[in-house]
Amino acid sequence: MYIGKAHRYKIMNGLMRRMRIIIVHGGAWNIPEEDKESHRNSLKEALAAGWSALKGNGRALDAVEEAVVHMENSGVFHAGSGASLNSEQKVELDAAIMTGDLNLGAVAGVSCIKNPISLARYVMENSKHALIVGTGAQIFAKQQGIPLCDPDELVTARERRRFKEGLENEFGTVGAVALDGNGNMAVATSTSGTYKKMAGRVGDSPLVGCGTYADKERGACSATGHGESFMKTVAAKTACDALEKEPDAQTAAEKTLQMILKRTGGKGGFILLRKDGDYGIAFTTPAMARGVMKEGMEAPEVSV
Amino acid sequence: MYIGKAHRYKIMNGLMRRMRIIIVHGGAWNIPEEDKESHRNSLKEALAAGWSALKGNGRALDAVEEAVVHMENSGVFHAGSGASLNSEQKVELDAAIMTGDLNLGAVAGVSCIKNPISLARYVMENSKHALIVGTGAQIFAKQQGIPLCDPDELVTARERRRFKEGLENEFGTVGAVALDGNGNMAVATSTSGTYKKMAGRVGDSPLVGCGTYADKERGACSATGHGESFMKTVAAKTACDALEKEPDAQTAAEKTLQMILKRTGGKGGFILLRKDGDYGIAFTTPAMARGVMKEGMEAPEVSV
Repeated sequence: MYIGKAHRYKIMNGLMRRMRIIIVHGGAWNIPEEDKESHRNSLKEALAAGWSALKGNGRALDAVEEAVVHMENSGVFHAGSGASLNSEQKVELDAAIMTGDLNLGAVAGVSCIKNPISLARYVMENSKHALIVGTGAQIFAKQQGIPLCDPDELVTARERRRFKEGLENEFGTVGAVALDGNGNMAVATSTSGTYKKMAGRVGDSPLVGCGTYADKERGACSATGHGESFMKTVAAKTACDALEKEPDAQTAAEKTLQMILKRTGGKGGFILLRKDGDYGIAFTTPAMARGVMKEGMEAPEVSV
Repeated sequence: MYIGKAHRYKIMNGLMRRMRIIIVHGGAWNIPEEDKESHRNSLKEALAAGWSALKGNGRALDAVEEAVVHMENSGVFHAGSGASLNSEQKVELDAAIMTGDLNLGAVAGVSCIKNPISLARYVMENSKHALIVGTGAQIFAKQQGIPLCDPDELVTARERRRFKEGLENEFGTVGAVALDGNGNMAVATSTSGTYKKMAGRVGDSPLVGCGTYADKERGACSATGHGESFMKTVAAKTACDALEKEPDAQTAAEKTLQMILKRTGGKGGFILLRKDGDYGIAFTTPAMARGVMKEGMEAPEVSV
């Protein structure tokens, strides 16, 4: 039997590699008009950084870390530099990273770390633990040779002004999910948590299953939104489980968000990637900063 | 149609109240022979305390808190007084409490709190947050008028000795699940985490879905075991979800533990209560301290 060139390519493609894809988000909330341009630019740059890491034999794990590090460093989102302030006018950062084979690292309540997502990866790769919080996480960072920063370095003029103005309900968490050419998946999420949170409050982002989850048997999900509601419903794991029941990832993401809204009243958004590369992006908030880059696309697509 | 007395009672029972039940565990590990008697006695006392709270219109929430407070105070288990020491020879405690209507409170990495489970309940009832960690949790405790204790008060001579002897793999977490006469469910879990853990390490116990979960649509579960493995698999929520697929709670508990063992190599145990009162107790460790008291039983049944 003759197999045409296109078909042969498809078979090779199917056998030898999965479709490479990376999806990012920069939070789901009522993003102010004056912030939209900077959001779009930073999403594009984060996707370019992540996509570059996916080339050749590049790993999904590196791609999600690269993309999130870029967003943490941008000063645009409420993660890393650009963090929102807690009720004590201090910064406390949370992050988690996970691969499809259930490797997991997370940190919460850290103040002196420029890139919490990279510290989370150190927890995953260089400790026997999965979540380290507070000053313990900073002791671990020092042991790993990660420089501690002055917490004030992470606070932008924009956030000082917003604290005074008393804006609320900003969910500027960042996250990324990716699938690499070898079929491996990964997810990363980083945040400064809700605006004017109490000292020590931890939301869904660094909590496995809540803001962050990956399982090669189903898919990967990074969430953003009202943390306590996403914790109660173990949102990211529930979205990954919905991939088994629903016809596509978009439906799985939308139905899970509707369930969360119905049972808790909480709003937010998901980026959800199925193990075969099908994906869904959904939100119940007025807006969500998000973007995609995948095999066959000439340039990243972003929306705010 | 005539309805006999027994049948009428059953209908009334079915319509007006669910079967009251409380189940407790005191950890799943290789419990030393010399500790078994004290474990049995403490489990009985914890069940009596919880059962007493379930009388009349008593709430499942009060029952699980009472039972866990009793175990925290006993000095027998690795929670509250009796905590194991971390790598710095210090105590860091974690706890979570949750009701079937998804109300949730948790604390992690607290050192100066005699009853972390009660502080978790304060988080649930008196804050807008669900998880508060480290020194932030102690600031919250002070605001709530909860006295802070000297951390050394929580350290027993037994634990000082064990630290020197270098014993490992003790999973002495405590937990309780209950269903009250009005059909409400609750779960509580409290722990000092794994032996010689790094400072700041948080395991599955205080993490929603991992060590602790309740949902009136399915059931309630408290887990104990290798925390990192139970986190990766979001163990307690997965066990509650299995109640929908499996014929009974025992099968759901056993199958979920086997899945965790297969996918992560991690061992531990569950107490799992279905919304209708059917329950399962299972463990993949050599032993598990556990007990039950329910409607129709004359006295609590415990095993170690």
